[in-house]
Amino acid sequence: MKVLAVDLGGSHVACALVEDDSIVKSESFQLPPAARMSDVLALVEQPLLALREMASHSGAECSGLAFSFCGLVNPLAGRIVSTNGKYDDGRELDLGKWALERLSLRLLLENDARTALLGEYYAGAARGFDDVVMMTLGTGVGGAAMINGRLLHGKHFQAGCLGGHLGVNYRGRVCTCGNVGCLESEASTWALPAICTATPGFEESVLRHAPKLDFQTVFAASAEGDECAIRVGDTCVEAWAAGCVTMIHAYDPEVVVVGGGTMRAAEQILPALGAHISRCAWTPWGKVKVRAAKLGSAASLLGAVPLFRMNSQMDARK
Amino acid sequence: MKVLAVDLGGSHVACALVEDDSIVKSESFQLPPAARMSDVLALVEQPLLALREMASHSGAECSGLAFSFCGLVNPLAGRIVSTNGKYDDGRELDLGKWALERLSLRLLLENDARTALLGEYYAGAARGFDDVVMMTLGTGVGGAAMINGRLLHGKHFQAGCLGGHLGVNYRGRVCTCGNVGCLESEASTWALPAICTATPGFEESVLRHAPKLDFQTVFAASAEGDECAIRVGDTCVEAWAAGCVTMIHAYDPEVVVVGGGTMRAAEQILPALGAHISRCAWTPWGKVKVRAAKLGSAASLLGAVPLFRMNSQMDARK
Repeated sequence: MKVLAVDLGGSHVACALVEDDSIVKSESFQLPPAARMSDVLALVEQPLLALREMASHSGAECSGLAFSFCGLVNPLAGRIVSTNGKYDDGRELDLGKWALERLSLRLLLENDARTALLGEYYAGAARGFDDVVMMTLGTGVGGAAMINGRLLHGKHFQAGCLGGHLGVNYRGRVCTCGNVGCLESEASTWALPAICTATPGFEESVLRHAPKLDFQTVFAASAEGDECAIRVGDTCVEAWAAGCVTMIHAYDPEVVVVGGGTMRAAEQILPALGAHISRCAWTPWGKVKVRAAKLGSAASLLGAVPLFRMNSQMDARK
Repeated sequence: MKVLAVDLGGSHVACALVEDDSIVKSESFQLPPAARMSDVLALVEQPLLALREMASHSGAECSGLAFSFCGLVNPLAGRIVSTNGKYDDGRELDLGKWALERLSLRLLLENDARTALLGEYYAGAARGFDDVVMMTLGTGVGGAAMINGRLLHGKHFQAGCLGGHLGVNYRGRVCTCGNVGCLESEASTWALPAICTATPGFEESVLRHAPKLDFQTVFAASAEGDECAIRVGDTCVEAWAAGCVTMIHAYDPEVVVVGGGTMRAAEQILPALGAHISRCAWTPWGKVKVRAAKLGSAASLLGAVPLFRMNSQMDARK
């Protein structure tokens, strides 16, 4: 099966032609901070037409366009539900209509953590498992859950994909979502400056003079023995592990896949994360597998084909 | 539809004859702390036979026996999976075989928080909703989730029903389950003595001389202006609210039903709980309803008929 895929994140958009479990061709564009959804659509239209053209030259036509979005969506209606401040005009746009009119393709819209899970399930770290939790560590923290081979959606399509907003500290920091002590306000790249400055030893730490406070910087300093960086790293791994345990207790998976840009430091994260989960998760049936995502930034794009496959199974059941 | 129901909790067992949404007759027995499952079965056999007899005298036979258990179960196999230290011999017993041989009835086994949710769904506070989260506040904290009219089970049947073991404080107290800062180690009756003694003002508080530290005592002292009791009450409500928000973010329900013995102080719990949830839950679609359970200790017994109804629907679909 061939499909087109769009993966729209907070600061970039990727377009691809995907055939089964491989990306035939992809392009990625940086977006200005104030980009609107209408700007994004204008930007991707020509590249997508070129990719569709490429597909039909090599034989079979594309079956559709899988659109991964970094916010809450209603996949049944093909509408964006909540954007948390990004691409706000997207809620008024009919993306399905746009794809039919401009690309002559049927569009399936899905949350990007869910398509990333689908990608890892189909072609990555969760291959062979039907009960999967995915956690993505990046600017924020994302989540998705699959039970018995089906993505969990819930009544308003937000089940499973608020992994970053599971509370891990009810006396913690206020989150952008309005809650207190969310996983993402306790341990994510956007919260990192506040976390570092509040950590003992910051005044004497190399972190104080870092041009950019991200987890690569923190784990590099931690490897050099910087005490503040070690504390920050340990605390964040602890918070992520607590979030994973909550997701395990909530969704009962066989495997937890951890991805996102922060996992570039997987060597410093995964062993401690796995040990904490193994110690703290209550799973009388055995041990949950904890794995690093395999597909990196291609995960959501590679979720495109399974998204269409599952959708046509659902159509067939009607 | 008429069924028999057994509800086995940590310290008591109830037997009932249930017809649709009413309990025709029920009996409850206190259990000794070291009661084994074999003792429980020996105790309930005669009362259940009498109830079955009563049913057939009044016309229709019972369709089966719904058995609610206070631990993890495998409802498909009809086996107890994990007991957390109570009725440990239950894992080796074939309850289905016992019910067929001794009562000539088909047995359906389910976790007691799930049957309590089913009861409230069928005849109580969640009537009319298909997306429901239940939280029971008692000796421990229980949970259950229904999505689109179906109980959530997960791969190993523990999804949804570890509500008390969702982490709310990753730097909190160690829980009996091995995790840190579970909702139930932060705010439940079994954790209450530790919570009270660690709260500032305990030395001067009336709680120090209370013959029994339960939430009724705490909320009574709090209503009298006892500062330590006020702090304990506020903190526990905050923790329960954080747990509810996590369950809302995880399962995306329309309504949260809060039950359990601690809700005898519902007047002091529900307004603050509802306000916190309303402030902190990220639900762009609207507001989650927060309701006190209506059925009290009868909830699990009244879950018996919907349990059999859903099961026969599933049989019909095969």
